[in-house]
Amino acid sequence: MNISILSIGDELLSGRTLNTNATWLGKNLTEIGCNVMEQTVIPDDESIIIKTLNTMIDTNKESCLIITGGLGPTEDDVTRESLFKYVGTEEKFDSEYWEYLSNRFKKFGIDIPQSNRNQALIPTTGEIIDNPIGSARGFKFKMGKSILFSLPGVPKEMKEMTRASILPWLHERSDKIFYSTTIRTTGIPESVLIEEISIALESDHGCTLGYYPSLFGVDIHVISEDKDLKDTLLNNIVSLLGDKVFTLEKENIEDVVVKIAQKKNITLSVAESCTGGLIGHRLTEVSGSSNAYKGGVVAYSNYSKINILGINEQILEEHGAVSEETAKEMAMRSRMMFSSDIGLSITGIAGPDGGSTEKPVGLVFIALSTEKGIKVREYKFGSNRTNNKLRTSQVALNWLRLEMQND
Amino acid sequence: MNISILSIGDELLSGRTLNTNATWLGKNLTEIGCNVMEQTVIPDDESIIIKTLNTMIDTNKESCLIITGGLGPTEDDVTRESLFKYVGTEEKFDSEYWEYLSNRFKKFGIDIPQSNRNQALIPTTGEIIDNPIGSARGFKFKMGKSILFSLPGVPKEMKEMTRASILPWLHERSDKIFYSTTIRTTGIPESVLIEEISIALESDHGCTLGYYPSLFGVDIHVISEDKDLKDTLLNNIVSLLGDKVFTLEKENIEDVVVKIAQKKNITLSVAESCTGGLIGHRLTEVSGSSNAYKGGVVAYSNYSKINILGINEQILEEHGAVSEETAKEMAMRSRMMFSSDIGLSITGIAGPDGGSTEKPVGLVFIALSTEKGIKVREYKFGSNRTNNKLRTSQVALNWLRLEMQND
Repeated sequence: MNISILSIGDELLSGRTLNTNATWLGKNLTEIGCNVMEQTVIPDDESIIIKTLNTMIDTNKESCLIITGGLGPTEDDVTRESLFKYVGTEEKFDSEYWEYLSNRFKKFGIDIPQSNRNQALIPTTGEIIDNPIGSARGFKFKMGKSILFSLPGVPKEMKEMTRASILPWLHERSDKIFYSTTIRTTGIPESVLIEEISIALESDHGCTLGYYPSLFGVDIHVISEDKDLKDTLLNNIVSLLGDKVFTLEKENIEDVVVKIAQKKNITLSVAESCTGGLIGHRLTEVSGSSNAYKGGVVAYSNYSKINILGINEQILEEHGAVSEETAKEMAMRSRMMFSSDIGLSITGIAGPDGGSTEKPVGLVFIALSTEKGIKVREYKFGSNRTNNKLRTSQVALNWLRLEMQND
Repeated sequence: MNISILSIGDELLSGRTLNTNATWLGKNLTEIGCNVMEQTVIPDDESIIIKTLNTMIDTNKESCLIITGGLGPTEDDVTRESLFKYVGTEEKFDSEYWEYLSNRFKKFGIDIPQSNRNQALIPTTGEIIDNPIGSARGFKFKMGKSILFSLPGVPKEMKEMTRASILPWLHERSDKIFYSTTIRTTGIPESVLIEEISIALESDHGCTLGYYPSLFGVDIHVISEDKDLKDTLLNNIVSLLGDKVFTLEKENIEDVVVKIAQKKNITLSVAESCTGGLIGHRLTEVSGSSNAYKGGVVAYSNYSKINILGINEQILEEHGAVSEETAKEMAMRSRMMFSSDIGLSITGIAGPDGGSTEKPVGLVFIALSTEKGIKVREYKFGSNRTNNKLRTSQVALNWLRLEMQND
């Protein structure tokens, strides 16, 4: 099915709000095999809305338009009115819904504002789309061969309603059903990855692939109308990439790290210098991570490296704070302090200043201490401070994953 | 000037990439007083590009279209070709630029791929827009009263070129010059903020205001054609809001905190429990923060609270890890350990699980220890783990700011 997305809202045009709705819709519609043709943003303006609907909707073609935004209770919200005019429907007041809404407000101890009355206005033709978590319901109209959905712009409500009412409807209407899985990889650049899986792609695999690179790795999206074909290619790619794949689920590497640690009953601690607490932050994004993550020290000064971690001053003087030796000491001492099974450490030059010819900005040492001993690795990232921290945290978490997985 | 934005790229429609370019352009164009009328995303498809250009450009009206994306060297990039066809210009090969480009690649030790040759193709009419950091140059065409810019989609390059070539051009052409300042506030909800500044807004102030709320606070954008009027309203709002305003610059609260600490020669340390390292991460996002931020302990377990921070076990047993008493101990001991001037601590229940009737999810204690004594505050946030951590970090950094500012 060909789909267009129309986002309505002044705040999107003026850059006050990032249009994450359109991206989310694009991703979820593409995943079930829809073809997103166009995405447009226009202001909260009745004449522009009606003009745009006339341009975007071709009633002779089987297609679908999803509108988001402008269904709120305030005066700027004119989508409902404009839409009813475009469709040519009368409106009536849904007193049952008004009563329901008034009661819901009362539960929160609020008298419902009269401005919310317009959210109880419904068309005499078309359908209502329930909103389980907000007051603005959506609408569905059929215009010739074209179907038109209108949803509120609040992302949480829009997503909930799309999941409940639109995606299943599109699935059902589609003569095709699509099967898809996302392979999440890290530690391998996109170009090398494509080379490594090229043998699997040479065959007539019957799937469509999408590559989604980010600072954290490359996601490969495999989609097919044939479940077996999808699974076959998926398995081929996964076996070619080996442990570069960290999950086939919708989760991040910190989720995988915490899961493995919990399963294997391994405890972790971290001594961070240049990442400043980012690794602790990421690990504690996982609900229930306190089983596995015991804590960490952000040793951002030599003082704290010496007095809190207990590193010998001579090591710092001889080799510097950013060195193999210091990284090893930090990992070992973190493990001892927190009496954790694994101690991870990071020391580096985040930039953009503070580098030298010998030790350039972006130089990072990561060390892992376990009961078996201490290992250290050296990396060179770029000059962007935030990117360096993010990349370093991903590489370190991935090392933790592999260490525990292969143990 | 009325402006439309056209983003070209399959990856934007399929939700693989969030369209931050359009948001950035919207914000920066609105700030200089332009009116962003429409923003559209279409695929890398020649016939669709040409059809859309025909629809979006009205050569009889003074207006401007900014196109981003599709100027890369690969086969999917068809913007240049399509644009030249639409404009009706011949193309020629710019051998001087090709030589320059080849040399630039050589510097990085790479032989320039032949596919890059199309980036040296230029139109016989129109202008070239230099790209100081990438290989894809942009174009500028005049079509009747309408002006058309085409820029690469790589955000860094797009922004650099817009700043260098488009914003100044728009400024110059505009019969109006706009003056604007963004007032960044935190610790006050949007509705209360509007009430508090209402007296300033009652007068005929001659400015346009925009409110940009986020988890971290509300930004107020004040814009006017008259610099004095802008400054007058700005000063009125700032004096009404007092220390709710943390900056009038383009910076975050962690930048302000580090700046004040450096200026006043104050050192900081942090003991984090539920934020897991996020505050350290935010402070170390500021380049040069090591002057002020000595480090921290992520005391994510009772073990680490007792054995590393040295908190009396009895306090934890009597009052619990999430309590006023524990927070105070954490702040004090962090200050001692790092021998910093200020010790900040956070303990709370990030959620979504782990709450009780007495201590619900979202309960957070923040404490500050200075040479004058220890203060503690209690907060109740929601049930979303990430939001709780982000909100807590902002409140804590804001407290640090106020403590140092008023000292």
